[in-house]
Amino acid sequence: MSPSSRNRPPKRPPAAPASPTAGSAKAPAGGRRHPGRPGGDADRRSLALDAALACYVRRGIAATTLRDIAGEAGVTPALLHYYFHDAAGLRDAVIAERLMPVFVEVRETLLGMDDAGLGEVLAAFVDRICALVARHAWLPALWIREVVSEGGSLRDLLVTRLAPEIAAVMAARFAAEQAAGRLNPALDPRLLMVSLVGLTLFPAAGTPIWRALFDADDLGIEDIRRHALALLERGLELPA
Amino acid sequence: MSPSSRNRPPKRPPAAPASPTAGSAKAPAGGRRHPGRPGGDADRRSLALDAALACYVRRGIAATTLRDIAGEAGVTPALLHYYFHDAAGLRDAVIAERLMPVFVEVRETLLGMDDAGLGEVLAAFVDRICALVARHAWLPALWIREVVSEGGSLRDLLVTRLAPEIAAVMAARFAAEQAAGRLNPALDPRLLMVSLVGLTLFPAAGTPIWRALFDADDLGIEDIRRHALALLERGLELPA
Repeated sequence: MSPSSRNRPPKRPPAAPASPTAGSAKAPAGGRRHPGRPGGDADRRSLALDAALACYVRRGIAATTLRDIAGEAGVTPALLHYYFHDAAGLRDAVIAERLMPVFVEVRETLLGMDDAGLGEVLAAFVDRICALVARHAWLPALWIREVVSEGGSLRDLLVTRLAPEIAAVMAARFAAEQAAGRLNPALDPRLLMVSLVGLTLFPAAGTPIWRALFDADDLGIEDIRRHALALLERGLELPA
Repeated sequence: MSPSSRNRPPKRPPAAPASPTAGSAKAPAGGRRHPGRPGGDADRRSLALDAALACYVRRGIAATTLRDIAGEAGVTPALLHYYFHDAAGLRDAVIAERLMPVFVEVRETLLGMDDAGLGEVLAAFVDRICALVARHAWLPALWIREVVSEGGSLRDLLVTRLAPEIAAVMAARFAAEQAAGRLNPALDPRLLMVSLVGLTLFPAAGTPIWRALFDADDLGIEDIRRHALALLERGLELPA
């Protein structure tokens, strides 16, 4: 803890946590460490996670310090230190409490609709992604910066832990549907999930660009949703 | 020209600075030497531009220093200072000599095929983007980092100078084709160019991700091209 942060100790949390919870900070941050703490903690903690996401989107996870996030949240670095130990602990908490719930929703949509036809599943995926974007403004920008960009801090998490099961199951299903004559046989089964993302999350990430280009402040996620479904359903429908 | 070109340093490179450089081993694949000018100015300059692109992709334009690029190119910072004055001058040269030619090709494809039908133009666009990606490995990653990512250094250039004409002309053409019954009327004319990019440049940028996910080292731009054309032409072709 820096000398300056001792000058203004946070109100509630005791100065205690100089205690090396260091070990536990490394643990995936699902663990709740303050049962029975007076109300307000949860709020401040949640505020800090939101502030972290804002900073991540603006300057990237790797370049964001605990101090940046404290400034964004309007709290002292000491408070964040108390809750999350350090920048890595806070990042882990954001992953566990903000990103994972989003991912679980996507996963459930794709793998949880056992009895649904492929068209229904894919439409549900488009709808779900767009609903998530509407709910979490940070989602597309964070995904572009930290997954799609080279060197992104979340790419490894996605590629090695989160996405492999979905990718394998969906590609196998696409191939099976093609074999059964129920899906355009000229598509690449591996690239179809990629296309669904390229027609939803990617245009969502570029929304400020398209709005400026078309001078259309109202261009938004609902337009993206309808357009994606229309293109997926029938393609361009050009004259033969 | 750039403000940075004002303070022109001496006319000759500083005594070919300790140059272990220009010559040999470091030259990137594809760099062609100019006949009759072994290790000449043009070669070294070109090498520096390629090195800059590699650095930009890896760490971003804003975070890249002249020293980074000198290290990547295997030349002294003094040589780069001689050619480009400073990091901003080098960036301007990369834009003028590497990015603009790419953009001009794209523009010509979209706006230069006066007599072609829409289908022909869009297929040519997909082909052209994929050919550019095959030729310039840096293109998709740089575009993601510096245009699509929030705060990207090239977003403003694209939004205010390069893309507006193309965006307006193409959106108007799409709307006209819809009115004439020659294009799927459920598509959003503003989002169709976005979709074309989302089905080409975006999947190209994510190639390392898809390759890892599908354990498919051969998954490449030609797969992306064929898949995009198939999806655009007919959509998913799901059973009614």
